[in-house]
Amino acid sequence: MSILRFDQTTSDWVIVAPSRVRRPDEFRNRVNVVDTTPDSATNCPFCPGNEARTPQEIYAERAFGSSASEWTVRVIPNKFPALRIEEDHRHYDDGEGFRYIGGCGAHEVIVESPDHSRLLAEQPVDQIERVLRTAQMRYQDLMRDTRFQTVIIFKNHGESAGTSLRHPHWQLIATPVVPRLLRLKHIVATEFFDQTGSCLYCVMVQHELAEKKRILAANSDFVALLPYASHVPFETWILPLHHQSSFGLLERDRLRPLAEMLKIVLLRLHRGLENPDFNLAIDTVSRGDESKEYFLWHIRVLPRLTTPAGFELGSGMSINTVRPEEAAEYLRGVEA
Amino acid sequence: MSILRFDQTTSDWVIVAPSRVRRPDEFRNRVNVVDTTPDSATNCPFCPGNEARTPQEIYAERAFGSSASEWTVRVIPNKFPALRIEEDHRHYDDGEGFRYIGGCGAHEVIVESPDHSRLLAEQPVDQIERVLRTAQMRYQDLMRDTRFQTVIIFKNHGESAGTSLRHPHWQLIATPVVPRLLRLKHIVATEFFDQTGSCLYCVMVQHELAEKKRILAANSDFVALLPYASHVPFETWILPLHHQSSFGLLERDRLRPLAEMLKIVLLRLHRGLENPDFNLAIDTVSRGDESKEYFLWHIRVLPRLTTPAGFELGSGMSINTVRPEEAAEYLRGVEA
Repeated sequence: MSILRFDQTTSDWVIVAPSRVRRPDEFRNRVNVVDTTPDSATNCPFCPGNEARTPQEIYAERAFGSSASEWTVRVIPNKFPALRIEEDHRHYDDGEGFRYIGGCGAHEVIVESPDHSRLLAEQPVDQIERVLRTAQMRYQDLMRDTRFQTVIIFKNHGESAGTSLRHPHWQLIATPVVPRLLRLKHIVATEFFDQTGSCLYCVMVQHELAEKKRILAANSDFVALLPYASHVPFETWILPLHHQSSFGLLERDRLRPLAEMLKIVLLRLHRGLENPDFNLAIDTVSRGDESKEYFLWHIRVLPRLTTPAGFELGSGMSINTVRPEEAAEYLRGVEA
Repeated sequence: MSILRFDQTTSDWVIVAPSRVRRPDEFRNRVNVVDTTPDSATNCPFCPGNEARTPQEIYAERAFGSSASEWTVRVIPNKFPALRIEEDHRHYDDGEGFRYIGGCGAHEVIVESPDHSRLLAEQPVDQIERVLRTAQMRYQDLMRDTRFQTVIIFKNHGESAGTSLRHPHWQLIATPVVPRLLRLKHIVATEFFDQTGSCLYCVMVQHELAEKKRILAANSDFVALLPYASHVPFETWILPLHHQSSFGLLERDRLRPLAEMLKIVLLRLHRGLENPDFNLAIDTVSRGDESKEYFLWHIRVLPRLTTPAGFELGSGMSINTVRPEEAAEYLRGVEA
């Protein structure tokens, strides 16, 4: 059973989820704290035919009349959830500065395709669109639960990016609080809006399109760019070209150009950097701000090429060892 | 040549330091981007006898009349500095939201001892005290340069903690700005002080001492504890028992009890978790706040037992898989 504890020195909420591991002394051997990675389809719980080895299915796309094992995308609860819908979401305060909330939330897995080994970058655009549509549908459904303030949609690829199961998948975690980093981004963008009447991100996109040198690709609806102050080498963002605060509001007919843009970005990173480990996350507004004008939802892809060390953990500052202009130029030269 | 770029979406400054690597396409092979780790004293630039292989020495402790290779602690500039004292520290703004500062700062290395393989935890208390005294001296000296707003003192142990050279060492980086995370901690603690008239950290220490269950050790001057909202498993802090805002103000006669406490903490982590990789950083106030009452300087030790993944990078929230109470109980049972 997990809870969220308040860090009174930073105003962070920390999820303390001991159900995800065994006992403290098992850290002695520094074994992987979650299931070991199944190397083949035989023992992979995400592979077709092994549906009974996952918790009860939440959603799947199947052709009419097909069997339980014939799905194209499948959504299941995470077997080791960080947060659960059954938990309490009240706030507790012992009066001595120790505050917590019950571990109320949700933690779901989207299995990207029946294929155990095929990477998202290598999937046809149709399949990538299917994954994005499913992610949006689950986002919309989870946000109907008014206990949840936000839903983080993310993907881990590779061991150094925290993957525990190799079969390609996305995850969603709904939280009963707005994480401080997201709150900060919303405050910064709101202040910019109050001062200028414009969306900070839309203005940034216009400046980047004018400067060109950090643009990776663009189509009718989306642009992919490496931000001016990239925190890690080859950090790449995908942003809509038309203002839209929430990923949940993306129109159905724009899922395809988004899938096309995501494929280009992932393929270029995959080929240009020889299948790097990476994390991907969707930044969007929190509950109640969907119709506001200050924020532009976007996808961030963060390759895991370097290791944050004591300076980064101590100061919170990043050291980026590759200029985004050079990284963009390099990636533009990679076939996609 | 590095610069600091402003991330207008978070108000972070990012150090873009491309001199630390070669070319973007060398990331293809994901080789270590800094010098490879010398395994033996023969080719280690930090070992005695190889003094000529480092940049010009800044400081060393030597007995009177001893030779250049007979030192107990040695301070040198980092060969691949993130920031340098020669650089410009003016702010530039292109009027389109792209702001930067010259890469002005300092980046030093403290070689802990002549011994290539002996870990800090295994050093005699005398030697640990010597390292802490040297760190404080370098901190005080760097803070005399009024261009620097703060100095991050840190140590990386092990590959997953970002170490590039095995010979045990600490580092200091002086920055021309206050990093946002530190500014946040200072603001949070200042607000607490304004509301209560007390130092947030001193109050927390009193509550922790009363609760006992997260205390690891204490002596006349310091306490080691695992904070209530630990962000990572086995996160351990060392805090003074008497209010003091800056590490720079620590009295000379308190360096020894600090060294004793640090040895206990590092030994218990080393023995209890089988030599885990870890980062260590000293949190202290920024320029001008040394005499203020809101902050208590402290050492944070962050074992690298789990990998932050897409959720953590996307939300900024941590998932801690071990309750600090259980981690503290386990570590208290380890001989030190």
